[in-house]
Amino acid sequence: MPGYSIDTLEVGTSESLAKTITDADIVLFAGVSCDTNPVHVDDEYASGTRFGGRIAHGMLSASLISAAIANKLPGPGTIYLGQSLRFLAPVRPGDTVKATVTVKEINSEKRRATLATVCTVEGVAVIEGEAQVLVPAASSGEKR
Amino acid sequence: MPGYSIDTLEVGTSESLAKTITDADIVLFAGVSCDTNPVHVDDEYASGTRFGGRIAHGMLSASLISAAIANKLPGPGTIYLGQSLRFLAPVRPGDTVKATVTVKEINSEKRRATLATVCTVEGVAVIEGEAQVLVPAASSGEKR
Amino acid sequence: MPGYSIDTLEVGTSESLAKTITDADIVLFAGVSCDTNPVHVDDEYASGTRFGGRIAHGMLSASLISAAIANKLPGPGTIYLGQSLRFLAPVRPGDTVKATVTVKEINSEKRRATLATVCTVEGVAVIEGEAQVLVPAASSGEKR
Amino acid sequence: MPGYSIDTLEVGTSESLAKTITDADIVLFAGVSCDTNPVHVDDEYASGTRFGGRIAHGMLSASLISAAIANKLPGPGTIYLGQSLRFLAPVRPGDTVKATVTVKEINSEKRRATLATVCTVEGVAVIEGEAQVLVPAASSGEKR
Repeated sequence: MPGYSIDTLEVGTSESLAKTITDADIVLFAGVSCDTNPVHVDDEYASGTRFGGRIAHGMLSASLISAAIANKLPGPGTIYLGQSLRFLAPVRPGDTVKATVTVKEINSEKRRATLATVCTVEGVAVIEGEAQVLVPAASSGEKR
Repeated sequence: MPGYSIDTLEVGTSESLAKTITDADIVLFAGVSCDTNPVHVDDEYASGTRFGGRIAHGMLSASLISAAIANKLPGPGTIYLGQSLRFLAPVRPGDTVKATVTVKEINSEKRRATLATVCTVEGVAVIEGEAQVLVPAASSGEKR
Repeated sequence: MPGYSIDTLEVGTSESLAKTITDADIVLFAGVSCDTNPVHVDDEYASGTRFGGRIAHGMLSASLISAAIANKLPGPGTIYLGQSLRFLAPVRPGDTVKATVTVKEINSEKRRATLATVCTVEGVAVIEGEAQVLVPAASSGEKR
Repeated sequence: MPGYSIDTLEVGTSESLAKTITDADIVLFAGVSCDTNPVHVDDEYASGTRFGGRIAHGMLSASLISAAIANKLPGPGTIYLGQSLRFLAPVRPGDTVKATVTVKEINSEKRRATLATVCTVEGVAVIEGEAQVLVPAASSGEKR
């Protein structure tokens, strides 16, 4: 299994995952979440708002942070304990969102780590926050 | 448009939205988020973890909070500013997750409110946290 | 039930099925397959590759061959035994892929047939290969 | 970027990816592929066939091979050149399919590799075949 365990994780280690947010993502996210806010699904309504057009759900972009944690850092076997999110700017259909997670603090005894988490579009932060995770143990033999 | 504006919102007001999390939601969320953590998609792997079987993505359940805010309290026109999440317990396919948002604090001048946010399954909290929102203005005539 | 049985199938018979590959297909295929290769989901990454932009999963286009076999030639009741695929050119979101299957060889005794299979976009082959199938028996009364 | 390049790939290296095939996967695959064979979507029809019940699309299970190649071995940057598939046994809703890819042959000059590919359910092979891939170059600086 790729990824990091508590004894290979280091402060400053960073991984990213990027995805282009399409209209299909917005429709599917609306269906899964029941968040049918017109700003996400109604072009006419959205063009009258401060955003000037439809935007993606903030939680949709935030879900890429979860993917970066699950797939890459620390990777498979990680338990997601918490997340804070500040939604800084809108993401529009067609934008490519890059979620970057960076190790900020490690508590080896409790196998916990704090990650700085940021989502950017063309280098501009759209979401900032922190994640708390339980890092996989070094020995893969123990109960995950 | 249903929902609340800054002059109708009161501390203590609460709204809920519930959804049964199906296998379809998990597959779709995996596609939208790129989060293909085996604990979500691989029964054999998941049964060897502390969870004893597949669980839904934490962010999937969290997205119901976004829906409760967008659809109900404060409702359409709200701007989502921030969210904190503590993942307390797993959600399994077939579980019905109820997201409840309750007004905790209002800053009328800045049109901001803090909401207590909790997701429960059969009355047990699975996610806890707080949301910060920009509440719609009283006059619907002004620029949203 | 439409389609062919072992005594109506002839070498040279050909059927086609076409589908426009949308962003929605790519998101859904990523979720179903767990194939989140950035060349399929990340415009910025993909534009730096030899493809110059996002492309559909090869197996997504190949799945139209399966559909042409299942729905048309030989049609319902066919057992899919094998398939070879050579991926010749990329398929982009918005492309319409036409899968054509043509009977190449028939073994009546074993009720087997070999089909030439090709997927094209605007007449240019993007996938070529062969399928082996078990053809439905003449009498629909027998155990399928 | 995780994964292997032409100078780190070795004959015998093996990676796996597993997924539980749910009804949702079958519905979504039917929608994406247009393969609406009743053996996949009609319980009453399927129970009268040799399979005794609904089965997943062969290409759905095969798509996990594509994911194992794209996500793990060789991983991101790989170009999928070809695939052969022999469908050996049915996969039923609820089965967990494990796709394993193993390096069989490497042509360093052409950066090509042949992978043995097998999908198993509880250790029993359901699909066997081979993949041909173009392996990422050692230097990440060159045009992918």
